[in-house]
Amino acid sequence: MLEELKKRVCKANQKLPELGLSVFTWGNVSGLDREKGLFVIKPSGVPYDELCPEKMIVMNLGCEKVEGALNPSSDTPTHCGLYKAFPKIGGIVHTHSRWATIWAQAGASIPVLGTTHADCFYGPIPCTREMTFAEIRGEYEKETAAVIAEAFAETDPMDIPAALVRLHGAFAWGKDCGGAVYNAAALEEVAMMAWHTVSMPQNTKSSVTQALIDRHFLRKHGKGAYYGQNHGV
Amino acid sequence: MLEELKKRVCKANQKLPELGLSVFTWGNVSGLDREKGLFVIKPSGVPYDELCPEKMIVMNLGCEKVEGALNPSSDTPTHCGLYKAFPKIGGIVHTHSRWATIWAQAGASIPVLGTTHADCFYGPIPCTREMTFAEIRGEYEKETAAVIAEAFAETDPMDIPAALVRLHGAFAWGKDCGGAVYNAAALEEVAMMAWHTVSMPQNTKSSVTQALIDRHFLRKHGKGAYYGQNHGV
Amino acid sequence: MLEELKKRVCKANQKLPELGLSVFTWGNVSGLDREKGLFVIKPSGVPYDELCPEKMIVMNLGCEKVEGALNPSSDTPTHCGLYKAFPKIGGIVHTHSRWATIWAQAGASIPVLGTTHADCFYGPIPCTREMTFAEIRGEYEKETAAVIAEAFAETDPMDIPAALVRLHGAFAWGKDCGGAVYNAAALEEVAMMAWHTVSMPQNTKSSVTQALIDRHFLRKHGKGAYYGQNHGV
Amino acid sequence: MLEELKKRVCKANQKLPELGLSVFTWGNVSGLDREKGLFVIKPSGVPYDELCPEKMIVMNLGCEKVEGALNPSSDTPTHCGLYKAFPKIGGIVHTHSRWATIWAQAGASIPVLGTTHADCFYGPIPCTREMTFAEIRGEYEKETAAVIAEAFAETDPMDIPAALVRLHGAFAWGKDCGGAVYNAAALEEVAMMAWHTVSMPQNTKSSVTQALIDRHFLRKHGKGAYYGQNHGV
Repeated sequence: MLEELKKRVCKANQKLPELGLSVFTWGNVSGLDREKGLFVIKPSGVPYDELCPEKMIVMNLGCEKVEGALNPSSDTPTHCGLYKAFPKIGGIVHTHSRWATIWAQAGASIPVLGTTHADCFYGPIPCTREMTFAEIRGEYEKETAAVIAEAFAETDPMDIPAALVRLHGAFAWGKDCGGAVYNAAALEEVAMMAWHTVSMPQNTKSSVTQALIDRHFLRKHGKGAYYGQNHGV
Repeated sequence: MLEELKKRVCKANQKLPELGLSVFTWGNVSGLDREKGLFVIKPSGVPYDELCPEKMIVMNLGCEKVEGALNPSSDTPTHCGLYKAFPKIGGIVHTHSRWATIWAQAGASIPVLGTTHADCFYGPIPCTREMTFAEIRGEYEKETAAVIAEAFAETDPMDIPAALVRLHGAFAWGKDCGGAVYNAAALEEVAMMAWHTVSMPQNTKSSVTQALIDRHFLRKHGKGAYYGQNHGV
Repeated sequence: MLEELKKRVCKANQKLPELGLSVFTWGNVSGLDREKGLFVIKPSGVPYDELCPEKMIVMNLGCEKVEGALNPSSDTPTHCGLYKAFPKIGGIVHTHSRWATIWAQAGASIPVLGTTHADCFYGPIPCTREMTFAEIRGEYEKETAAVIAEAFAETDPMDIPAALVRLHGAFAWGKDCGGAVYNAAALEEVAMMAWHTVSMPQNTKSSVTQALIDRHFLRKHGKGAYYGQNHGV
Repeated sequence: MLEELKKRVCKANQKLPELGLSVFTWGNVSGLDREKGLFVIKPSGVPYDELCPEKMIVMNLGCEKVEGALNPSSDTPTHCGLYKAFPKIGGIVHTHSRWATIWAQAGASIPVLGTTHADCFYGPIPCTREMTFAEIRGEYEKETAAVIAEAFAETDPMDIPAALVRLHGAFAWGKDCGGAVYNAAALEEVAMMAWHTVSMPQNTKSSVTQALIDRHFLRKHGKGAYYGQNHGV
């Protein structure tokens, strides 16, 4: 069943290591067929290069396995909870991608620091609140979806298609699994640049003299240039 | 028309991901035939690996499409404005490359901190002023060219062939589209090193004892070396 | 002898450069056959791409060479000491991988800053105490094992399968050589993210106006979107 | 003439981009035949993938071209000066590799912060003094060799086979051109780790609770583990 969706979800999972978003088995993608109320997700602990459509797991929105020989990702209840909380989404990605995870570990939302962010996310990317001991010790993965949904109480999740789970990692979503992977990659790019923007010192004075600037620029580009093979050209 | 230029512009666009300057579709290159008053530019939103010369768009300097089935890059009015403002340039690149964009997001010009910079850029790489609400809400992409040109009021754009657009990203240019890509890559290299130069702390004392230095250097290089297969050689 | 183990240890060594954990010859892996009391280790100073199972060295737990034409890794006494100190481990990796080594050079244990860490290491990854001059000038490599073991006096080494040797680099271990390599890679990932988490400033305010956010998000995703080829879709 | 040396120098130059030490044409390698008093060096401004042994330039220690159709590297007088100042060296590399250049731009010597450094360099890697205007405007490249030699007045250049030229970049050397490239790569690795060691903050406390650590470690490794396919194994 859902053979076409299995192919797309399998391929989307394999994009994670290609895009530098996951090492080993540290990330998973799912895709939803909302009409049928079924979603396809990565099996747990299987390396990306051993994945094939036949190994994908089919789940219903009651979080029960409908098809598949292997166990689904241990994060499956989070995917399931998000599909129920966010009616417009059709694909979800979870990663521990480096830069997004650094923000999650710092417990900070990513502010809008430039247009790269604004091209993809219509406001800060929220970091969820700290989970309670009861949530952590209870149905942890399901509660993870709940704290994400809580962070979007007043935000359309299609306007900001990603969240940081505090002390944990990133979730991103989209209208389908391919769109979710795109947003996960955009999040990583934005997170990397945001980290370095907020960490940059104010004082950025130069210590280079005009004499040294002249020497280097002019030996390549000036009238008496002596770098390269075509002097004066 | 302009078949040769289309080939070169197509190839220059494909250099962006190869050089690590753009992911997905987040950058574009154009090339100008100044005699004819026409420039060739990337179509909007098309991934680099799906580009071919036939898909390139031909524009005139009135910013009207002259040839091409697809829509041109949404940044086309910025390219057009720069070709008109800077009479010596023949190629333009726009990217959100990580390190240049970090400086743009910080709203800081890149000071000349070393000879790598001076080899390519004859002075600080300017960051444009903040755009007004009217400029942002008006002809935004055209106004973007205007604030870049404003930053070069007293500078020859061939001496400093790049600019940071505040809170946005990088533009670079050159005598042709290949030269513009080279300058965009040089900007990224310079921006990365500048960030780490200004962020380095003053105190750089060592805590390693001479005993440990001796042990490690001499076990590899000393008279009694026991690392590797050719002791004493 | 131990032909199967030699193959696995050889392959595990070659994973080090593949995973970005070692350049040149700066890392080594061993694997133990605890029943026979023998372990297989990389020869010293041989590049990874010149390794083959036949070049692997067989050692006993008295740290004597049992088989092999070449000299074993100069770190062999550390491997031997760890196999004796930690009865449950079956594979060991030593690297100077960048991020783990940075923490070792800073002389700091890696705190648990997120769940990526907790997925792999059940507490902080300890940094060993500074070695005495006598230890450095004496049986240095053997003493290195001793200071690692000392750091695990009250910890099960299978709960935290890695240590930082102060001012030096990383050791990781596992139930076999493949598991040890996995843990070395996990350590590197965790160390990179931990460095940036502790180095992130508190103040992460944005300077981007809503006007600019609107412009960029809406030109791609709004009703009047003009980015890409399928407007309004 | 010197056909064998040309091959080795050509190959050593091509290692620079392979090892991530140079982009475009921003680095050069030479190799010396000290008996004949001749050295072979890269032609100026030629990309690495267009190099072949026949394009290499032969120079004498008077810094005159002996053979070759192209112009030698513009840094040739520095190479020549170092061969004369350091009688034991047989190969030289110049790069603008990122991390070494960052230290050079900061005007700081790289202190010995760990054993990776001590494995390769028997003390701090010196940063040269600032050059005078007369030196910059005079025989700049020759004077560059002089300030490097000055920094080694009391150091054997084979003990510390590299230097940072203040505000410029790196020079490394060795007994031959292959050894020089190795040392340039080691310098880059050491410089990267040193930057992050000196930049690491003192406070590295964790904010993760034991409950979260338990949840994550034990769902993968505990008795009730539910991650992956082989629970309890």
